[in-house]
Amino acid sequence: MSYPRQAEGFQVDSPDTYTDFHKRFFQLKPFGDYDVDIKIEACGVCGSDVHTVSGGWGDQKFPLCVGHEIVGHAIRIGPKVTLIKEGQRVGVGAQSYSCGSCKQCQNENETYCPHLQIDTYGAEWPDTGIISQGGYSSHVRTHEHWVFPIPEALSTAVVAPMLCAGLTAYSPLVRNGAGPGKKVGIVGLGGIGHFGLMFAKALGAETWAISRSRAKEADARALGADGYIATAEEGWEKEHLCSFDLIVNCANSSKGFDLAKYLSMMDVHGRWISVGMPEEEGQVIKAQNLIANGVLIGASHLGSRREMLEMLQLAAEKGLKGWVEELPIGEEGLREAMQRMKKGDVRYRFTMTGYEKVFN
Amino acid sequence: MSYPRQAEGFQVDSPDTYTDFHKRFFQLKPFGDYDVDIKIEACGVCGSDVHTVSGGWGDQKFPLCVGHEIVGHAIRIGPKVTLIKEGQRVGVGAQSYSCGSCKQCQNENETYCPHLQIDTYGAEWPDTGIISQGGYSSHVRTHEHWVFPIPEALSTAVVAPMLCAGLTAYSPLVRNGAGPGKKVGIVGLGGIGHFGLMFAKALGAETWAISRSRAKEADARALGADGYIATAEEGWEKEHLCSFDLIVNCANSSKGFDLAKYLSMMDVHGRWISVGMPEEEGQVIKAQNLIANGVLIGASHLGSRREMLEMLQLAAEKGLKGWVEELPIGEEGLREAMQRMKKGDVRYRFTMTGYEKVFN
Repeated sequence: MSYPRQAEGFQVDSPDTYTDFHKRFFQLKPFGDYDVDIKIEACGVCGSDVHTVSGGWGDQKFPLCVGHEIVGHAIRIGPKVTLIKEGQRVGVGAQSYSCGSCKQCQNENETYCPHLQIDTYGAEWPDTGIISQGGYSSHVRTHEHWVFPIPEALSTAVVAPMLCAGLTAYSPLVRNGAGPGKKVGIVGLGGIGHFGLMFAKALGAETWAISRSRAKEADARALGADGYIATAEEGWEKEHLCSFDLIVNCANSSKGFDLAKYLSMMDVHGRWISVGMPEEEGQVIKAQNLIANGVLIGASHLGSRREMLEMLQLAAEKGLKGWVEELPIGEEGLREAMQRMKKGDVRYRFTMTGYEKVFN
Repeated sequence: MSYPRQAEGFQVDSPDTYTDFHKRFFQLKPFGDYDVDIKIEACGVCGSDVHTVSGGWGDQKFPLCVGHEIVGHAIRIGPKVTLIKEGQRVGVGAQSYSCGSCKQCQNENETYCPHLQIDTYGAEWPDTGIISQGGYSSHVRTHEHWVFPIPEALSTAVVAPMLCAGLTAYSPLVRNGAGPGKKVGIVGLGGIGHFGLMFAKALGAETWAISRSRAKEADARALGADGYIATAEEGWEKEHLCSFDLIVNCANSSKGFDLAKYLSMMDVHGRWISVGMPEEEGQVIKAQNLIANGVLIGASHLGSRREMLEMLQLAAEKGLKGWVEELPIGEEGLREAMQRMKKGDVRYRFTMTGYEKVFN
């Protein structure tokens, strides 16, 4: 078998031209003892991809190939790799490296490592000048800690979005006690939120979808929601005062968001955890807003390797499936993905597929 | 023994004249089966008193007698009272009633009762038109749940400020795990903060004082601080990145506060709990500010009856004493208290005493 020296992928050159993808070769990082080379077969389209290429999150290192919900097969294994076998179907998510030795990394908080975090795309590999490139491409090269075996029961296209969106929803649920006897809300029924509903229910929590209108109610209930709150309706928060143990805020925008009303629904010391990173300015929070029920406000960043493996196992056992629309990888498919993601025209995730036709 | 029908106390008439106290009689609420009448002997001067009478917290029900760090003796006991004995030395804090029957009240979260909260002063007793009046007065009449026996080891003038400031510091410490192996910071070395240092240390935590300048360092160390951070010094947060398990923010103002720097010191999923309620507008918080370490931001309101009793016991056992300056109750003493509180000219709490000379 021949190993890749380069990968070939679709890059964007600037925020002004973020729907124009250019197929190019680019360099992979030097192959390390713990690295795994993966031939990519599918990649989900994450909101982060759009924020990144369209400039919403500020300056990026262009040209850039995005995509961090990667599924493929391991085709080469470094000499010290023990977690992955050659030929195994595997996934890669949004983060690809951390220092590995600090308290946080040792404590299953590697996504919060304060020393080194290499994102799957757009980060510079130390001492190389090489910028990491994502999964709209033929191959990725990733340290084994960040490569996850995919259970057989989960299909490639459907599992791909779990690698970022799924884990992003799953980690704050399990870290904040979602389970039997708990009332959990999911705000924002998009890519992350639809996994949130699915996982909250699978974990045994009383699960509520919280969305602006009732347009997505049937979907929410099909995904597992026990109840539905439409915030466009007058007095929507009233019957839920002081009752939620946890709300995971997956909304992609904070515009027109009356946070105080949401917080009034939290039980004493309940947790309001945000996983979206809106492009707008934040919200003004006064101690007075938090004191009525001692609510805790936080944010969550991806999830640990252990959580990823547990989530995939849970999905395999319970037959959980993201709602995925497949689009063909390529200039046209990626343009459509970006345009429709920007409009929110997706229920609830795109996966780019057809890699074998495009890369050789 | 004769029972009071009225109490006599010192009232303020408006925010414009908040240093002018007028000695007057006022009506007590009707005596209930669970009520305790207390002859007051001392009352701490809380920041809330100043915020309230000077208008910083908005409209209040004037004329008003403030003061909610009350110590005295129980002189009359309702027929159903079981928690307090006649003649006992007791305290009353900032809250004097809640619904008593909801989930929160049943769960030792009575200070977060969403149905009914009667503050010790300035709240209307249901169905009476009577506004509760505080402890710069001869007597209070309080439901036994909100009356606390004072351990013999604690002197009246010194224990008074624990009834509000002490409990306000103690509750978030114990609710958020302050103890051996934890690194705890106390921001703001005032009335609440000085108790925070004392209690964090007594609970076994590695205790850090966080203040603007080094002016209070000797005090902080005398109070029990293991370390001291002066935020006026360049790079003050750098050596503490990602290390605090809990910071209790007791600062009375949020002016010029660079919250992001404070939060950068928090360990993953550490807690930043505010107990002060600054008069200024709040702070803009973006999910991005919270995501690096998954920090949780919250606020805390007083503490439960059980926590009050535990705190008093801890103080008695360990000989903990607030730093108290006594002022004589009366027009002059109260004016001085308000003026010096407003300037922050107190280390670290006033207690009004000499009640026996003024009330008969």
